[in-house]
Amino acid sequence: MKRYEKYADDIAELIRSGVLGPGARVPSVRYASQAHGISPSTVFQAYYLLERRGLIRARPRSGYFVNPSVLVQPAQTPREPQVSESTEVDVSELVFSVLDSIKDPNTVPFGSAFPSPLLFPLQRLSRSLASASRDMDPRMVVTDMSPGHPQLRRQIALRYMTSGLMLPMEELLITNGALEALNLCLQAVTEPGDLVAIEAPAFYACLQVLERLKLKAVEIPVHTHDGIDLGILAQTLERYPVKAVWCMTSFQNPSGALMPEARKRELVELLREHQVPLIEDDVYAELYYGPHAPKPAKAFDTDGLVMHCGSFAKSLAPGYRIGWVAAGRYAQKIERLKLMTSLCASMPAQAAIADYLEHGGYDRHLRKLRYALEDQQRAMLAAIGRYFPAQTRVSQPVGGYFLWLELPDSVDSLQVFKVALAQGISIAPGPIFSPTQRFANCIRLNYGSPWNDAAEKAMETLGRIVRSMLGN
Amino acid sequence: MKRYEKYADDIAELIRSGVLGPGARVPSVRYASQAHGISPSTVFQAYYLLERRGLIRARPRSGYFVNPSVLVQPAQTPREPQVSESTEVDVSELVFSVLDSIKDPNTVPFGSAFPSPLLFPLQRLSRSLASASRDMDPRMVVTDMSPGHPQLRRQIALRYMTSGLMLPMEELLITNGALEALNLCLQAVTEPGDLVAIEAPAFYACLQVLERLKLKAVEIPVHTHDGIDLGILAQTLERYPVKAVWCMTSFQNPSGALMPEARKRELVELLREHQVPLIEDDVYAELYYGPHAPKPAKAFDTDGLVMHCGSFAKSLAPGYRIGWVAAGRYAQKIERLKLMTSLCASMPAQAAIADYLEHGGYDRHLRKLRYALEDQQRAMLAAIGRYFPAQTRVSQPVGGYFLWLELPDSVDSLQVFKVALAQGISIAPGPIFSPTQRFANCIRLNYGSPWNDAAEKAMETLGRIVRSMLGN
Repeated sequence: MKRYEKYADDIAELIRSGVLGPGARVPSVRYASQAHGISPSTVFQAYYLLERRGLIRARPRSGYFVNPSVLVQPAQTPREPQVSESTEVDVSELVFSVLDSIKDPNTVPFGSAFPSPLLFPLQRLSRSLASASRDMDPRMVVTDMSPGHPQLRRQIALRYMTSGLMLPMEELLITNGALEALNLCLQAVTEPGDLVAIEAPAFYACLQVLERLKLKAVEIPVHTHDGIDLGILAQTLERYPVKAVWCMTSFQNPSGALMPEARKRELVELLREHQVPLIEDDVYAELYYGPHAPKPAKAFDTDGLVMHCGSFAKSLAPGYRIGWVAAGRYAQKIERLKLMTSLCASMPAQAAIADYLEHGGYDRHLRKLRYALEDQQRAMLAAIGRYFPAQTRVSQPVGGYFLWLELPDSVDSLQVFKVALAQGISIAPGPIFSPTQRFANCIRLNYGSPWNDAAEKAMETLGRIVRSMLGN
Repeated sequence: MKRYEKYADDIAELIRSGVLGPGARVPSVRYASQAHGISPSTVFQAYYLLERRGLIRARPRSGYFVNPSVLVQPAQTPREPQVSESTEVDVSELVFSVLDSIKDPNTVPFGSAFPSPLLFPLQRLSRSLASASRDMDPRMVVTDMSPGHPQLRRQIALRYMTSGLMLPMEELLITNGALEALNLCLQAVTEPGDLVAIEAPAFYACLQVLERLKLKAVEIPVHTHDGIDLGILAQTLERYPVKAVWCMTSFQNPSGALMPEARKRELVELLREHQVPLIEDDVYAELYYGPHAPKPAKAFDTDGLVMHCGSFAKSLAPGYRIGWVAAGRYAQKIERLKLMTSLCASMPAQAAIADYLEHGGYDRHLRKLRYALEDQQRAMLAAIGRYFPAQTRVSQPVGGYFLWLELPDSVDSLQVFKVALAQGISIAPGPIFSPTQRFANCIRLNYGSPWNDAAEKAMETLGRIVRSMLGN
């Protein structure tokens, strides 16, 4: 990272954490240059960058000031946390009807689950694919089938290591995307009819996996500021025979919640007491906006009870379908389930990603990607402020690419979904994120595409649709 | 195909079908040239080819003669066909211990499930991978997730069409290899505890899938000459609530049995009467030695009851993990299960195979591959004749790359497995092919690797091990 980028990041972090509030003056070029021992031109470069990123603006003859933050209220799901009953899961029809309808590439993809593929280094990856597959030992098909491509597993273990998590390579199994990993994890620790604690709201694919495996769900509320409600989880574990907890601990889909490290540690400790395994879905791990990668709950796992699932689909190579799981004490069981289910993940795709991680400049790409996502978030938040009713509450996640909106109570998000789709805009309506189809007034918006006039206009249309449903 | 290749194939077929018996004189060059209206040099080329393939040999001044066939007795599993009881499936531990032990690349791979990767055009495929991934539309990740890459599905449908089977593209879903397809098919039509009719012997992965899905099995005997016993299957369907039949109709693994088309038609008709779905595992479809591709049972399906599963793993691209299913009336259900399980198959791998099918010369590769496999079969049969006890019975399949051996009753194949492995030779012992661990005196041998001195020597060692167990 260049010096000016580093300084810009430091300032951005001060803004993000509220040290430098809206309207505050950022340190003058002369002051910053002296205080940090960097040249004035470096400071200028940093401020230009922050300006481009929309965080500060110059006022003639006065210096640089923090932009006013977006005038939207933070979301506060849930309002009255309480222990849920267990529920049969039967949400697939609704989810599929939503997903089917948003496949049209001409639709504005606010309802999509993916960031725009345009943000990924696909040409560079394609070169890795060509060279890795050319050099691939043909016998590896048989010898490395399971637990997966050795160089790829080594690269993943190295990345864990640099983020402070020592993970033996033996624990790592490569899968067909994180979704397969999550399926295998759940299958390893449950029988049909068993109860699993999930988040409310929860990623709909989680609900579908539960439905497919004929599992029951108990919903634990997620707070947009710090994640799953540990008090309610504790009560639930006392009251019900929960066989596993499924949790997205960083940048939860859809709420965007990031559990602070202390709370992740507390979660792992709680589950250790009850000897209940945690399935940690951490596919947005690399998409943090702050200066440091948040540690996963897996980092606090002393008992091998945490099955940590990751993927390259959201940060590097959508469509390659390469994910992994570090499954602790369940590693062998999951490896065997994988062999019985689909043998192994595509070898050239594994080899390509291994090559890219070693030679392709993954960290540089990630830095650009994070800036882009943070920018796009700012643009979407601003648009919400401009076009949506004032009562709208919205999450402001520090990673990922989803906003979670609570619309006024009278708004039916399924209705918003239908009307918006008819006008070429997709959204993800709240009820697909709950087995009990709660969150009727909530929607999830994807800001994972470069912002442009079409997006701005679509937000304006969406705002108009929502307001029309208020009856005023 | 060249003219001389065509003529050579015709003669090979006459030898295979017994019209030209061992020692018979093949038509003289002059006669053949006149009768078929081809030049003498074309006939010579054909005979050279047949000589190289070990089918005929020249005797000085007398012409060409059919080589004596291999002196081994054909296998006749089963001896006393009868309706089985239903069984819980619990064979995985045994299977895994066998599979784990044969991963060493220095072991002679007679126990392997794969042909040698050296027989595949991996460099050509790698070029397809490079060019297809370079040209890939990034948006396809989202738009073509399910049911899969459109060009690939079109190419597969075209191949079906040329073999006389009209299959609408809409029915085709791309999967992570055939194993995932088979998993999804079974899951689509069963609940835990249900009963599935399988072959005896059956491919062990089938047993593992049943075990994973907590299904019960009823075993239907397979005759090495014409496949699953339809009489017994009919009785079983009368007597038990069978929810699905799983069948490898061509070159069954492990017996090598090919069901004649008439019997495939009969099978489909029988299942139509009972309205029981057929899961047709047809991964060896392209590995036929005769002049024509055998039709699958799917070709006779008028009711959408046949789920036909195929793969490129055994004929083109091991390690790419690209398979498919044409699932008739279950197509939508399976597509949704696939979305819930692993979203989609690796896109660059799909694009690469689509490109290769269009431009790479698949048929030329397959012709070479079939010759190679048939050659290798002949070499292994000859080695069995030389080294194994005379009471050994062996299948002589007209496709695939497995021989199924019935050793004398006193031989314990698990013991053979252990002793052979200690000497660096893997085999697949009979009991892993049955939920009731039958076939104690049977072994499956893989002849999918180019024949060489090491293979010959390994066969000699194996023969000695088996004979030592006869106690003489």
